Amino acid sequence: MLNFDFKNPTKIIFGKGQMAVLPKEIPADAKILLLYGGGSIKKNGIYEQVKEALSDFEVVEFGGIPANPEYQVLLKALEIIKSEKITFLLAVGGGSVIDGTKFLSSAALYEGEDPWEILKKPIRTFVGMPFGCVLTLPATGSEMNSGAVITRADSKEKLGMGGPGLFPQFSILDPEVIQSIPVRQLENGIVDAFNHVLEQYITFPAGASLQDRFAESILQTLIEVGPKVIENPSDYAAASNFMWSCTMALNGLIQKGVPTDWAVHAIGHELTALFGIDHARTLAIIGPNHYQYNFEAKKEKLAQYAERVWGISNGSVEEKAQAGIDKTKSFYTQLNVSYKLSDYTADYNGVATTIANRLDARGWVKLGENKNITPKDVEKIVEMSY
Amino acid sequence: MLNFDFKNPTKIIFGKGQMAVLPKEIPADAKILLLYGGGSIKKNGIYEQVKEALSDFEVVEFGGIPANPEYQVLLKALEIIKSEKITFLLAVGGGSVIDGTKFLSSAALYEGEDPWEILKKPIRTFVGMPFGCVLTLPATGSEMNSGAVITRADSKEKLGMGGPGLFPQFSILDPEVIQSIPVRQLENGIVDAFNHVLEQYITFPAGASLQDRFAESILQTLIEVGPKVIENPSDYAAASNFMWSCTMALNGLIQKGVPTDWAVHAIGHELTALFGIDHARTLAIIGPNHYQYNFEAKKEKLAQYAERVWGISNGSVEEKAQAGIDKTKSFYTQLNVSYKLSDYTADYNGVATTIANRLDARGWVKLGENKNITPKDVEKIVEMSY
Repeated sequence: MLNFDFKNPTKIIFGKGQMAVLPKEIPADAKILLLYGGGSIKKNGIYEQVKEALSDFEVVEFGGIPANPEYQVLLKALEIIKSEKITFLLAVGGGSVIDGTKFLSSAALYEGEDPWEILKKPIRTFVGMPFGCVLTLPATGSEMNSGAVITRADSKEKLGMGGPGLFPQFSILDPEVIQSIPVRQLENGIVDAFNHVLEQYITFPAGASLQDRFAESILQTLIEVGPKVIENPSDYAAASNFMWSCTMALNGLIQKGVPTDWAVHAIGHELTALFGIDHARTLAIIGPNHYQYNFEAKKEKLAQYAERVWGISNGSVEEKAQAGIDKTKSFYTQLNVSYKLSDYTADYNGVATTIANRLDARGWVKLGENKNITPKDVEKIVEMSY
Repeated sequence: MLNFDFKNPTKIIFGKGQMAVLPKEIPADAKILLLYGGGSIKKNGIYEQVKEALSDFEVVEFGGIPANPEYQVLLKALEIIKSEKITFLLAVGGGSVIDGTKFLSSAALYEGEDPWEILKKPIRTFVGMPFGCVLTLPATGSEMNSGAVITRADSKEKLGMGGPGLFPQFSILDPEVIQSIPVRQLENGIVDAFNHVLEQYITFPAGASLQDRFAESILQTLIEVGPKVIENPSDYAAASNFMWSCTMALNGLIQKGVPTDWAVHAIGHELTALFGIDHARTLAIIGPNHYQYNFEAKKEKLAQYAERVWGISNGSVEEKAQAGIDKTKSFYTQLNVSYKLSDYTADYNGVATTIANRLDARGWVKLGENKNITPKDVEKIVEMSY
């Protein structure tokens, strides 16, 4: 096991009807900026519930934060924070709204001239404006971690930021919200959380038995409840386990003491940038090919995954490892998520080279848990995904 | 899954050589009270390491906190905190030293006349004097939770206390400390952590798939590494997984959203009070008989435990459940921990009735996840343990 630090001070408030406690979690004298996305919360009743819970507070609203939260949009919210003397931020949404709120939490107290520096330099945030979340879309884990990814259209950049000041003060997770989520987003959420775990698990053995088993626990639970959630989003047991699994997949716990990969995310982001493919689906496209391409380096963990998560007890290490990859693909298919790039675009010819060149031009640091995956390797991995 | 709140702000600093960061975790102007137990830290080098790390701080010392931290001893430390104007507490030890420090954290800021009220009423602690821990004995999980149990000899009381103000600011966990722990205490630590999990897991199915799997992960890891730790305490992979498993067994995570039992602890405490039997060993004595006595209510979870933790795939629910109990006993035997009361005392005749009467006289609330275990039931459970 590698040395690690772990601290996660976010308060999770989980379950049916938990919106009722929202007013108790916010300082009584707070002036709140309520942040949300494209307006789905106005259709599913969440907006009304939040407004009612906040009836004793002074509340300003800012809607319209897009998927892949856009810097220029967030700057408008930042102006409101300053002109209205906001003291507390409340994100009501999924990962994009929460990530955007984290940027605002940092930028609101940033003393430099240009808040883009927080992302560009980057600057770690040790103290941000306090904020809370009402999670309406389980997937990213942003509700219980201190990281965010912000997109800037004018410079075609998508950059990460974070720091110990960016944990939500609280996050309210009511699994009943899942009933109102479009099925495509549920499919994406399951695949996203599944891949968050794989990035922290399909590496090489590092003597971290407990972390491995926790990772396997999340994968097994997603396999168990994912199809049930798709089938019947009103199945509360399935919905609650799905929601809690998404949070636990990326709240820092399972990455502590182990090597982590994250190459699948890095390559997947390029597919989103070039084709606008949903983030989770880019992970389904790249993941299995990344494991196939790096089979030798990852085969011990792939075999362990096949054994413990998929119950494959027969065969050599190599046979089990291969079965692990194959089972992963079947799971994506079961969730109606294609792992073939050609199912998303007809325009894929030459894209492997394009991506390799984009990464190369960016002076990209080598990726993967062994820091040895070059743009040339990425080219081959993307080619395998056609 | 039941509704729950979860917040755990303790910073864990885990691994070899982590004592070096200790000075960075304490405010520079702190006046520290260094608290420890019977002096083992002066034999294994930990005391020297701590003193060296704190060389730039003003430090007062208080040693001699006994196992089952005694109220009268702690009152002497409380006098020192007040007379020396201490601002930060540092617990260097196992669960007893840390629990004692939690009492002092609360009592130091308590404004009532009699600090025993904190335990007797009890009073929840929302703000305590800040404190950190250097863990020298993995077992209780106190290093990452906000609870404590304090003993008072003159009134023969053993009472619990807690509150959100009693999480350690940080806890340093260096698995290399395990090399210097007597084997009996390692055996106790494994059984203690194992039973912490069982109390939160062997209840009834509650639709909490992820929490169940996390509980099973800790049990499987303790089964895997426990005997290795006993065999060779210098096996770092085993020691580190043992240490992290003990912390995760009682830091709140696996109890969220599920029913919990804790009857085994309640009955076990009586055996410690009457015979001075090590706490962990009382859990080994009572646990299997408690499960046998409450077989009908617990058989579904016992069978799940047998299947997933012990790999028992054949048989009816009842047969698997029985195998789960039997495997538990074999595990304790493998760890040189007897589950028979008669192996600890020849003086056990009539003790079941004594314990039932003690509990009855105390106006004891019915225990167990179904709150239906009476003193009469306890009498039968204890009789089964002879």
